Amino acid sequence: MKVKVLIMPRKGLLDPEGRAVKEMLLEEGFPVREVKVGKVVELEVEETADVKTIAEKYLVNPLVEEYQIE
Amino acid sequence: MKVKVLIMPRKGLLDPEGRAVKEMLLEEGFPVREVKVGKVVELEVEETADVKTIAEKYLVNPLVEEYQIE
Repeated sequence: MKVKVLIMPRKGLLDPEGRAVKEMLLEEGFPVREVKVGKVVELEVEETADVKTIAEKYLVNPLVEEYQIE
Repeated sequence: MKVKVLIMPRKGLLDPEGRAVKEMLLEEGFPVREVKVGKVVELEVEETADVKTIAEKYLVNPLVEEYQIE
C-alpha cells in the first residue's frame, strides 16, 4: 500500500519558505491568507508496516515539526 | 479554506532524498518497497481562489515534478 506522511513546520515556528511563497503570491495578486511549506514522504510498504513508528523515529522532528499520515 | 498542493518528483526522475530514506529504512529493518520525498504547500485562501493556476504557475516545475491538490 502507499502511505503519505505529511510533515509541516509547527505553528508559530519559522517557515522561511512558506513566508517567501506567501509574499510572492501576494505580490502577484493572489490574496492568500497563509502559506506553509512542508515535506511529504510517500512510502510503499506492506499492509502491516508500522508507519507511525517510521514517521516518529526517522522522519519527523517533533520539536519543530508535526505530521499526519494519509 | 485550506488547500494542500502535494508536489512529488516525477516517476523515474532522480529523488536522492527518497533513495536515502529508503536505504536507511531498509538498513533499520523496515521492508519498504519504495520511498519518494516531495513537498507540500498548504495554502489558506478564499473559496474562489484559483489554486490550479497558483500551483502550475508558481509552485510546480512540470519538467521534473507532478502535483495533486487536496
